[in-house]
Amino acid sequence: MLQVKTVDEVFKIIREEFSLYPLETEQVPLIDACGRILAEDIISPENIPPFNRSSVDGYAVYASDTFGATETAGIPLVKSDAVKMGITPSESLKRGHASYIPTGGELPANADAVVMIEYTEDNEDEFIYINRPVAPGNNVVLTGDDIKMNSAVFSAGHRLKTADSGVLASIGVAVVKVKRRLRVGIIATGDEIIPVSASPVKAQVRDINSHVLYAALKEYCAEPVMYGIYDDNYEKIKCAAASALNECDILCISGGSSAGEKDETANIIDSLGRPGLLVHGIAVKPGKPTIIGRAGNKPVIGLPGHPASAFMIYTIFVKYLMDRMNGALDGAGRRISATIPQNYPSNAGREEFVPVKLHIENSICTANPLFGKSGQIKMLSDADGYIHIKRESEGLMAGRPVEVILF
Amino acid sequence: MLQVKTVDEVFKIIREEFSLYPLETEQVPLIDACGRILAEDIISPENIPPFNRSSVDGYAVYASDTFGATETAGIPLVKSDAVKMGITPSESLKRGHASYIPTGGELPANADAVVMIEYTEDNEDEFIYINRPVAPGNNVVLTGDDIKMNSAVFSAGHRLKTADSGVLASIGVAVVKVKRRLRVGIIATGDEIIPVSASPVKAQVRDINSHVLYAALKEYCAEPVMYGIYDDNYEKIKCAAASALNECDILCISGGSSAGEKDETANIIDSLGRPGLLVHGIAVKPGKPTIIGRAGNKPVIGLPGHPASAFMIYTIFVKYLMDRMNGALDGAGRRISATIPQNYPSNAGREEFVPVKLHIENSICTANPLFGKSGQIKMLSDADGYIHIKRESEGLMAGRPVEVILF
Repeated sequence: MLQVKTVDEVFKIIREEFSLYPLETEQVPLIDACGRILAEDIISPENIPPFNRSSVDGYAVYASDTFGATETAGIPLVKSDAVKMGITPSESLKRGHASYIPTGGELPANADAVVMIEYTEDNEDEFIYINRPVAPGNNVVLTGDDIKMNSAVFSAGHRLKTADSGVLASIGVAVVKVKRRLRVGIIATGDEIIPVSASPVKAQVRDINSHVLYAALKEYCAEPVMYGIYDDNYEKIKCAAASALNECDILCISGGSSAGEKDETANIIDSLGRPGLLVHGIAVKPGKPTIIGRAGNKPVIGLPGHPASAFMIYTIFVKYLMDRMNGALDGAGRRISATIPQNYPSNAGREEFVPVKLHIENSICTANPLFGKSGQIKMLSDADGYIHIKRESEGLMAGRPVEVILF
Repeated sequence: MLQVKTVDEVFKIIREEFSLYPLETEQVPLIDACGRILAEDIISPENIPPFNRSSVDGYAVYASDTFGATETAGIPLVKSDAVKMGITPSESLKRGHASYIPTGGELPANADAVVMIEYTEDNEDEFIYINRPVAPGNNVVLTGDDIKMNSAVFSAGHRLKTADSGVLASIGVAVVKVKRRLRVGIIATGDEIIPVSASPVKAQVRDINSHVLYAALKEYCAEPVMYGIYDDNYEKIKCAAASALNECDILCISGGSSAGEKDETANIIDSLGRPGLLVHGIAVKPGKPTIIGRAGNKPVIGLPGHPASAFMIYTIFVKYLMDRMNGALDGAGRRISATIPQNYPSNAGREEFVPVKLHIENSICTANPLFGKSGQIKMLSDADGYIHIKRESEGLMAGRPVEVILF
């Protein structure tokens, strides 16, 4: 039987065993690309903006023509043709002249600044009077200021977020090459587990884990597949697992991994293919009875039956696993800083993941550890994130900043 | 012409005009409910757990029978029938007895604690030897400890997140009543705007706003509809807007709202129906040239043409608007705390939304303001959130905690 592994050992095993998973790529329209992992570097074929652009409504000028202008002594400049949106000015600006330019308009050649319309005076004659000087570059976005031609905009492995779609739109990427969604099978096991729509009799409980995993996998942009609930029966579970694994990239089996039945689940995972069992227990709280195996290229995860434990293990290890299989660059959840209101002791020698609820007041963020038995699901729904207490640490000190990883 | 409004005035107008929008509800399967807004309070019909449950593998006992147990002087208790998963023990526990119980098993009547298996010794005789005392309640989750029968689990207006689906699963909610998705039309305007797949000639730029809005609306769980790009032509835009508004709950028109053309867009928005224009300009940076109108029940938003401004206005006002139309309880993005590395001056008299990039080191979170001209989209893609500088404030002080609202 394998020894209990540390968290870092498990991360290393996941990296070494699954980083080379041969995941195909696919082309998706830009409007469907958010949340997906880029399969190629994006190099901008163009400068953005592609021309010197005004960032205000005003007058394009030679900056030096405006030096010395004041409200009482406006400098008159000759009005040239106004710039029209979307059209490159046909003539370059002459010394002593100024062209009306709308926000986003292209500067005439030679113009090097724009005076905001608020700082000009138009007496309806041939001049525009400048009331404030501008320095070269004022109110102008220069060619390539936003994105330089041939620069790397995003790297392969980047997960696209909302604002990124604007960047891709700006450089004309209408179709994006991304990793195919990972297909993840979910099997729930346990004699006591019944479907959500059923009414428990006696000591039965509903299948929480399949639903939380399903929702979490959809949020990750994976493709979850529920394979249902199986009694604690070696042959039945093995058969269902083998069939599910055949259709999926990853298989998660929840339940059956606490002392009573964990050897059974471990045996099933070990039986699905070579090399078999890799991890049998992790020195972590919650989630110690976690199992990781490999059948061919594919990972099989035995998650604890406790919903809160299963969700934490999903968050820490399964997402890390999927990131590696996807070649994702950006890891884990967003990290923020908070303080905890009271000391939180922890056992040195194993890592601990403590769910917390955040509270912000007077711009100070407090993370309140949610104590609870690991079967409690409501607690997890109250949590905003978690604190990772390292193995060598003996806990957290009240008032000291801690890192919170958001769900 | 309407006066420029403050941010708070705009929020108030949105609340007063659109909170009563008659948005239908619909029933969705639990697995599709994440991200949606609950349309009814959820009251638990059951206790969770529905029985006293063991949270470990071990022996169910009378706690008082274990008092005084030590490793050298184990207390022998008579082994009773083992508890089976999913089955209510048929007999109550007798004094001086102990029943093996797996994690999640139902405690026999009278048992009030569980001794972890690690702290027992089994010599394969009729006794189990207890090596450590337990107090009543140890390793037991009592009936209703997680969720009490008839308690309010979630309120109408709550936005369901991943872990919430576990809570709903636990109490048997297989179908959830939620608000219908808001249908939001997107129209881009501007002579210079071309589709993403086109190559710009002269001073043309691609349609960034439609794509960012589309992605952002999908992330919000709304239903975006792109209506395309229109030249700055009053009649054409008015006709497209009227038709789009007819099919949607909300219409967003981007571009055409800076000084040069904003009256035109305002006129179009005003023309779409009564009561017409509500807001024409907001005292905010970026995004001053924002327009809000109402045609019948429906809001019409004129967003700035600048992509970064448009996205900020979407984030601040359009999400707030949708939350009110949805009857959503939870507002805006998640708020966290950070410090800024240098003073950031701001103009008192208008609010400012400053995009920031977060950096965490030694558990201290720093928010770096991203300076940039408002047309720059790459900056926004680098930002993790924003700081809201209030009207009465003159800016931010280096080293002092500030609130960052995450995108």
